[in-house]
Amino acid sequence: MQCNVQNIRLKDSQVSWCISQPWEKGSLRKGMWCLNFGGPGVQMTRQTVAVMKEAAAKRLTEEAAAEGELMQYGNTRGDPKYRIELAKFLTKMYGAPVDRDDILCTAGATHGLYTLCTQLFKAGDIVFVEDPTYFLAQVIFRKDCQFTMVPVPTDDKGMDMEALDRLMTEYKDKGVTKTSEKTPYRSLIYLVPCFQNPTSRCMAPERCQRVVQLARKHESLIVCDDVYNTLSWIPKPDGSFDDPPQGLFAYDKKTDTDYKGGHVVSNGSFSKFMGPGLRLGWYEAPTRLHAILREGGFLDSCGGFNQFTGGIMGTAMELELVEKHINNIRKYYQDAVGAVCQVLRQKMPKGTKFHEPQGGFFIWIELPDGADVSALRQICMDEHKIAFLPGHTCSPEGNYQNCLRISFSYYPKEELVRAVTVLCEAATKMLQ
Amino acid sequence: MQCNVQNIRLKDSQVSWCISQPWEKGSLRKGMWCLNFGGPGVQMTRQTVAVMKEAAAKRLTEEAAAEGELMQYGNTRGDPKYRIELAKFLTKMYGAPVDRDDILCTAGATHGLYTLCTQLFKAGDIVFVEDPTYFLAQVIFRKDCQFTMVPVPTDDKGMDMEALDRLMTEYKDKGVTKTSEKTPYRSLIYLVPCFQNPTSRCMAPERCQRVVQLARKHESLIVCDDVYNTLSWIPKPDGSFDDPPQGLFAYDKKTDTDYKGGHVVSNGSFSKFMGPGLRLGWYEAPTRLHAILREGGFLDSCGGFNQFTGGIMGTAMELELVEKHINNIRKYYQDAVGAVCQVLRQKMPKGTKFHEPQGGFFIWIELPDGADVSALRQICMDEHKIAFLPGHTCSPEGNYQNCLRISFSYYPKEELVRAVTVLCEAATKMLQ
Repeated sequence: MQCNVQNIRLKDSQVSWCISQPWEKGSLRKGMWCLNFGGPGVQMTRQTVAVMKEAAAKRLTEEAAAEGELMQYGNTRGDPKYRIELAKFLTKMYGAPVDRDDILCTAGATHGLYTLCTQLFKAGDIVFVEDPTYFLAQVIFRKDCQFTMVPVPTDDKGMDMEALDRLMTEYKDKGVTKTSEKTPYRSLIYLVPCFQNPTSRCMAPERCQRVVQLARKHESLIVCDDVYNTLSWIPKPDGSFDDPPQGLFAYDKKTDTDYKGGHVVSNGSFSKFMGPGLRLGWYEAPTRLHAILREGGFLDSCGGFNQFTGGIMGTAMELELVEKHINNIRKYYQDAVGAVCQVLRQKMPKGTKFHEPQGGFFIWIELPDGADVSALRQICMDEHKIAFLPGHTCSPEGNYQNCLRISFSYYPKEELVRAVTVLCEAATKMLQ
Repeated sequence: MQCNVQNIRLKDSQVSWCISQPWEKGSLRKGMWCLNFGGPGVQMTRQTVAVMKEAAAKRLTEEAAAEGELMQYGNTRGDPKYRIELAKFLTKMYGAPVDRDDILCTAGATHGLYTLCTQLFKAGDIVFVEDPTYFLAQVIFRKDCQFTMVPVPTDDKGMDMEALDRLMTEYKDKGVTKTSEKTPYRSLIYLVPCFQNPTSRCMAPERCQRVVQLARKHESLIVCDDVYNTLSWIPKPDGSFDDPPQGLFAYDKKTDTDYKGGHVVSNGSFSKFMGPGLRLGWYEAPTRLHAILREGGFLDSCGGFNQFTGGIMGTAMELELVEKHINNIRKYYQDAVGAVCQVLRQKMPKGTKFHEPQGGFFIWIELPDGADVSALRQICMDEHKIAFLPGHTCSPEGNYQNCLRISFSYYPKEELVRAVTVLCEAATKMLQ
């Protein structure tokens, strides 16, 4: 049995797990299931193409009739229509207000994270991360930025707040950056609070409140990849979908008595529910951070970080194409994830644990204690042409040796069910 | 007399010189001539809109019929069509070969510069710059990156190579970064070798050769904003246009006996001849730099730096729309610059010096010794609603107090002639 899907264009880190063709394609050969690949599938990218095609035609017709200002540098916070329509869209999605004045357009969440890391911090600074965390964020912190990464334990409710408080006290003076008007933060807390990568867990509301208090106390900036929130299918009793959790930025309330100018950035992206190739995202960020970024040369020299694509997306949201698209995608993933989890429940070895996700891209599977996931990966790669992400790559300390992350984002349901069935059989055989 | 052009969306640094409306517009009020604004005019942006509209329709139709792969992360070096077509386009423009394997897609030249600065260097490192240089690059170096900026004198042929050699020897051990496989360069040389910002001068070919030798000798990376090259109107005797100077990357020849793995990046952009809002550019960079960037988390996590816009531009180049567009633009600017320079020759105070540019966006005007350009700026702003860039803002040491940069890129010829006439009269009156 082998994968029937033709090609996937992968990121470099994922190509290394698989069998790649020459760079001109950057794709996979037919016959490989890349369950490590955290990108949208053809069912989503085709819809996104249709959305962008309709929106581009409308927006560029309007621009041609006016002065083509979308081609100019643009406001450093982004195309006005993008910001206005994005605030409306998020307000509707979250069922809670999002203010356009908090929004600054980015070129995707990675660009957003990298920009904050490099504009506000220096080599030798401290970043507190969840253990486990997004595997490539670790490369950005460790290799690109040369930060000291401090892993903080997690449980089903997210990061352990007592441990965080203790570690922040311990590392208080170990960073390089000292607080000043230009750099109001002495350290960074990196979180994926909603449908986390890799676990798909959501941080409990009381921890969301607590982590903001701790950031204020320890003069730290929380940067959240709030990239999966709108990609959710939390069911309501009537069968419709409930509002997804808001970005963590909503917890840093200006009305709080201990509000200190803003300690949270929700770093959003169109990558997960539209397509990563768009390189389009946004910050919800406090006013002082807008000011710091706009006074820097990076943003001032280039203008809006992704003016053209942002403008087209502004029109797509105005036409309500994005909302319709998301509603289709939600149903699609709810159905696919349900089918995959049924296979996992029936066929994984006894003692295996996992949550059925209500959003995001991933299922985090914990095999029984002592199971060697690295060995399972080798068997799956060699004998079954299946790739997945071993849990230890998501841990700064190499924990979670018995865990793995599979992505349900790319393949159609039938392929997922086939691949996961083979994976379950391989795991069962190995653990016999 | 006042400006008849309605609105310009400016970068933040330019808004401060002028009278800005609220952020929703980010524009200027009618009645101001912003000769400080270095962005394309309506004549260009409208054409660019038409190009992008046609190319987007074609590319997105093709993507819809296939699998919408343009929406995926994409190869980290960029959309294959973008790289293939860009290499062909540049080869034709320069009349000299450009290899697609050297190209890596960026999100514009500012993004390209910032990425190299932050991926390869640290706070405290040394950057050698021309005096005068691009005013906002200084902000990136000094404020964003906290580099030590070392100005190097220039003359009509570009940077003074003897001074550079001497200064590089003097600063050899004063940076922070030590050479290693991951960081093969101990310092940075920042150049705009072709139609320089602010002077519009081109570096003489013998200096281009020499600076590459010096970079090899001193283990330095030359990053060139090669962003104006293709925007040229160098006349041939038959009235057609000559090939513009190639990017400096072409001088770092692999066949040289002293080639040491590559010391030059030509940092290109579509901003100057298509539109800055596209946020699209490219590196011509040595193989080892491709490898370093692709091994970093920034590029690996996000995929191609501007996949969507790059893909559409690839199709635009395939359709030869970009080439046609450039040929129109060249004639337009040749005509406008000729008219402006005629006014300058006739009406500027005696002793004023300038070159008539054969490419780029700017005219660098040197008033007679002792002329106070800051005072002239104030008079022009207050009494004539004209803004320009004072020369000293382009100098790390505040030199060029008697110089100013005006941009001919934005306004139609008739407006330029009106504005420059008023400017000349104001200068003449002040110097009487």
